Amino acid sequence: MAVHRHFDEELQSLKEKLLSMASLAESMIYKAIKSLIERDSSFIEQVNSDEKKVNLLEIEIDDLCLKLLALKQPMAADLRFITSAMKIDNELERIGDMAVNITQSAAVLIRQPQLKPYIDIPRMADLAQKMVKDSLDSFIRQDVKLARSVLTRDDQIDDLGEQIFRELLTFMISDPSNIPRALQLVLVSRHLERVADHATNIAENVIYLVQGKDIRHHIEESGLAHT
Amino acid sequence: MAVHRHFDEELQSLKEKLLSMASLAESMIYKAIKSLIERDSSFIEQVNSDEKKVNLLEIEIDDLCLKLLALKQPMAADLRFITSAMKIDNELERIGDMAVNITQSAAVLIRQPQLKPYIDIPRMADLAQKMVKDSLDSFIRQDVKLARSVLTRDDQIDDLGEQIFRELLTFMISDPSNIPRALQLVLVSRHLERVADHATNIAENVIYLVQGKDIRHHIEESGLAHT
Repeated sequence: MAVHRHFDEELQSLKEKLLSMASLAESMIYKAIKSLIERDSSFIEQVNSDEKKVNLLEIEIDDLCLKLLALKQPMAADLRFITSAMKIDNELERIGDMAVNITQSAAVLIRQPQLKPYIDIPRMADLAQKMVKDSLDSFIRQDVKLARSVLTRDDQIDDLGEQIFRELLTFMISDPSNIPRALQLVLVSRHLERVADHATNIAENVIYLVQGKDIRHHIEESGLAHT
Repeated sequence: MAVHRHFDEELQSLKEKLLSMASLAESMIYKAIKSLIERDSSFIEQVNSDEKKVNLLEIEIDDLCLKLLALKQPMAADLRFITSAMKIDNELERIGDMAVNITQSAAVLIRQPQLKPYIDIPRMADLAQKMVKDSLDSFIRQDVKLARSVLTRDDQIDDLGEQIFRELLTFMISDPSNIPRALQLVLVSRHLERVADHATNIAENVIYLVQGKDIRHHIEESGLAHT
């Protein structure tokens, strides 16, 4: 009995660590975009220091998962949950990387006059952050419906990205002096698309975890998988 | 005894599947760049059909790993090897995604006159493919020296990417009609940088696997970790 309770506690601690890793990754995206919009480099420093925390959390979570696999030898559902956690922490770590990449563009952009008012980029960032949060919540609660809603939203992100790309292309063509700044904004929007892709990967994993592999094949065949 | 031999056979089969997944991912990069350079859309179709195979291989490998974890309850070294395999197949699947992304730019580019002779992009692609191959070989052979050489080469890729970026910026500024094509080439080079990042992740995983977690912390502190 004691061993079993201990396992549940460890599993609970795994869930909590994943949730705090997700909320850290989410806040990094928020701060990275804030540094761009408010032209405030103090947020850039915060993101850089958060990245170290996020990297350490990935290692901590992997270690906890290995410990659970080695000592408890869980079967079926718990085994899948733990191995999924080891894939998901990696997605979250990459979301943190994307925030760092965004701050690299922000650092260039805030040293120059602002090219245009930012409207679509903050919208895209809000959507992407919500996708990160919901994908992780869908994992913790094993909520397939929520996971599916994350997949749907990935198309909205791609449409916004396409729109931003075309608008920035127009800026570049109309005045070559806009090019370096517009290019950085293209990169920011691509990084946000990738954040959404990582959230989508997490959501696909949840569907696979809950419903078995036939669904994951189906997702791929229907073209819903990230490319 | 029979059970043990069976486990070794399954482990061998896991290694073979990972090697064929890696060589498929590598060949997808090769074909994607070939479609761009030879302006031949038949390679684009090949990459798209390869992507389905790579996605299925990831699922197959994950299933085999889960089976090994559930039925054999491996300890220590085998446990780490199997959980690493589940992270590495994901990196390989993303390398396949990058090849698909490259063909999307290639499809746009080969419908228009060629902007410039391609010199640095094929070099970058060669380097990135070699990094993929070596990272996987380092995993299979548990060869830390080879894994470290992959990490070193990531800097060369980043330098090449930076050089390509600056050259294309000049093309855009000198003639706005170059912008759409130059932008696609910027994206191709970014995708190749990401291929190298995935190979780097695999190599870091190998070092962590062989030498334990202190090294992985060290990699991060010294700034060698991918960002």
